[in-house]
Amino acid sequence: MNSFDPRNAPLLAWVDGVESNAIDIADRGLAYGDGLFETFRVINERPLWWDRHLARLTRGAEALGIDMPNPTRLHIEALNCCEGAVDGVLKLVLTRGSSGRGYRPGEGRPTRILSLYPSPSHQEAVTAIRCGTRLATQPQLAGFKHLNRIEQVLAARECQRAGVDEGLLFDTEDRLASGVSGNVFLLRNGEWLTPLIERCGVAGICREWLLEQVASCRETVLSDADLDAAEAVFVCNSVRGILPVTALDGQSLPCPDLLSALRELLWRELPPLPAKDCTGAE
Amino acid sequence: MNSFDPRNAPLLAWVDGVESNAIDIADRGLAYGDGLFETFRVINERPLWWDRHLARLTRGAEALGIDMPNPTRLHIEALNCCEGAVDGVLKLVLTRGSSGRGYRPGEGRPTRILSLYPSPSHQEAVTAIRCGTRLATQPQLAGFKHLNRIEQVLAARECQRAGVDEGLLFDTEDRLASGVSGNVFLLRNGEWLTPLIERCGVAGICREWLLEQVASCRETVLSDADLDAAEAVFVCNSVRGILPVTALDGQSLPCPDLLSALRELLWRELPPLPAKDCTGAE
Repeated sequence: MNSFDPRNAPLLAWVDGVESNAIDIADRGLAYGDGLFETFRVINERPLWWDRHLARLTRGAEALGIDMPNPTRLHIEALNCCEGAVDGVLKLVLTRGSSGRGYRPGEGRPTRILSLYPSPSHQEAVTAIRCGTRLATQPQLAGFKHLNRIEQVLAARECQRAGVDEGLLFDTEDRLASGVSGNVFLLRNGEWLTPLIERCGVAGICREWLLEQVASCRETVLSDADLDAAEAVFVCNSVRGILPVTALDGQSLPCPDLLSALRELLWRELPPLPAKDCTGAE
Repeated sequence: MNSFDPRNAPLLAWVDGVESNAIDIADRGLAYGDGLFETFRVINERPLWWDRHLARLTRGAEALGIDMPNPTRLHIEALNCCEGAVDGVLKLVLTRGSSGRGYRPGEGRPTRILSLYPSPSHQEAVTAIRCGTRLATQPQLAGFKHLNRIEQVLAARECQRAGVDEGLLFDTEDRLASGVSGNVFLLRNGEWLTPLIERCGVAGICREWLLEQVASCRETVLSDADLDAAEAVFVCNSVRGILPVTALDGQSLPCPDLLSALRELLWRELPPLPAKDCTGAE
C-alpha cells in the first residue's frame, strides 16, 4: 500500500480473524462509512467494559441492519489481539462488508477489524473551545458509534487550529450536544448534568457508567447559557476517563474537589492512563 | 483479504497510482468517512464531465481541508484506469489518508483510489417510494459528495424492502431534498423544479448540467404537497442520466412528451446506457 505510513500503524491488526492491515477498497466501511466502531481501554490484556461496548455495537448493528458477528468469536479475537498488552487501546470496526457500486446493500458478509494502539499518556486537564461546527440532528443515528464522523473531524481541526485539546459541540438547534472525542458534563448546584443523546451524538460508555453509578449525574437538555453558568465542566470517554476542562474559550474554569473526587471514583473502574505513552505490548 | 468477494470486485483498481485493491485499515476514509468521491460515466475510454466532477471534488476537498492531488496526475491515472473501456463507470475516492487513532488529522498524505466497474444496463423508468429516512440538515456538508452516506444506505434498504428502484428523501425539516442515488426534479406548469442544495444533499453533476443548459429547469424550495401536485417526476445522476419516475408509492405517474424530450436532449451529452450490463472493457 502506497499510502502506508509506519508512524500511523497500529501495533497489531486483525481483519476477519487473520492478521492483516489491509481491507478491500470495495468495503462499504470505506465507500459510505457503512459500519460501526468501538474503542476499548486495554489493561493487562483485557479490554475494559467489554459487555457495555458490545451492547452498544449490537444496538448500532440492529439500527443499520448489519449482522452481528458471533460475540464469543469476537471476544476471542479481541483477547488474541490484546495478548501481551499491559496498557493499550483496542479499536474494533464492524462494517457491512464489500459490495459492488451503489448504496443498496448486497450479499456481502460484514467485515470485522481489530487493531491495537499504544495508550495515550495521562493528562491532568484539558483546554477547550466552543466549536463552530454543529452536529446535525438525526434521531435515526443518535447514540451509536457509526463511521460517519466528518463533523467530529471538522471540529477536531478547529481545536487544532485554536491550539486547544478539546471542543464542545452544539447541535444545529443550539443545544449543547457533546465533546469532540467524548461526552460532556457540567456541574450545577451539586449535580452533574449531561446532554440527552436523542437527536445526535454518541451515548458514551464512560457517560453510561457515570449515569448508572453516580446519583448526582443525570441527563437533561442544556443550552449555551447553562454552559456559561456551569461551576465546572468535564469531558469523558472510555479510554481517557474524566478530563476536567480548566479553560474554555480562554476563560479559566475551576476544578473543584467534587470533580477530583468523581475522577478518583472512576479510577477504581477505569484506572488512570500511564504517565507516558505506553506501547501497550511487552 | 478475508472479506474479499470476487462478485463485488471492480474490473480494475488503482491506489495512489499503483494497481491494487487494498487500503490501509488506518485510512481515515474507513475510520471516519473522512473523504470524498466522484462517480463518472466512461465512454470510449473517456470519463465524461471530468471538469465538472473535478470542480466539485475540489470544492469538497477545500471544505474538508484535504489537499487536492495534482489534477493532471489524477487525469492521467483516470485515463489509465479507463483504458479499453467502451462503456463503464469510474469511481474516484479521495480520503485524508492514514493517521493514528483520533479525529484530529495527522500528517498523512491523502489517498486516491480509482476503480472501474461495468456499466449498469439501460432502464426506461423507475418505481419509487417516499422514504421514511430523513436527511439531516447540515449546511457545512451540503452539496459535495463526502463519504458519510449512512442515510443513503438506510434509504436504499427501505427501497429494497419495498421492492422499488428508487426513493425520494425529505430533510428533517420536511422539505423535499433528493433521490437516494440522484437528484429529483418535478414538473409544474411547464417548469422543471429541483430542491435547493443548501442544507443537505449532493449537488449532482447531471442536475448542474440541466440547470445550466435547460431554461425550464430551476431550483426552489419544495414540499410534500409540491410532490403530490407534480405533473411528472424524474431522478437523475451522471451515470444513468434522467430516469422518469412512473410510480410513486404505488400510484402511477405520467411520463409526458416534455420528459421524453428532456431525456433525449441529455442523451446528446450523456448517451443512454447499453441495453445489457456492459463489462466496459474490451
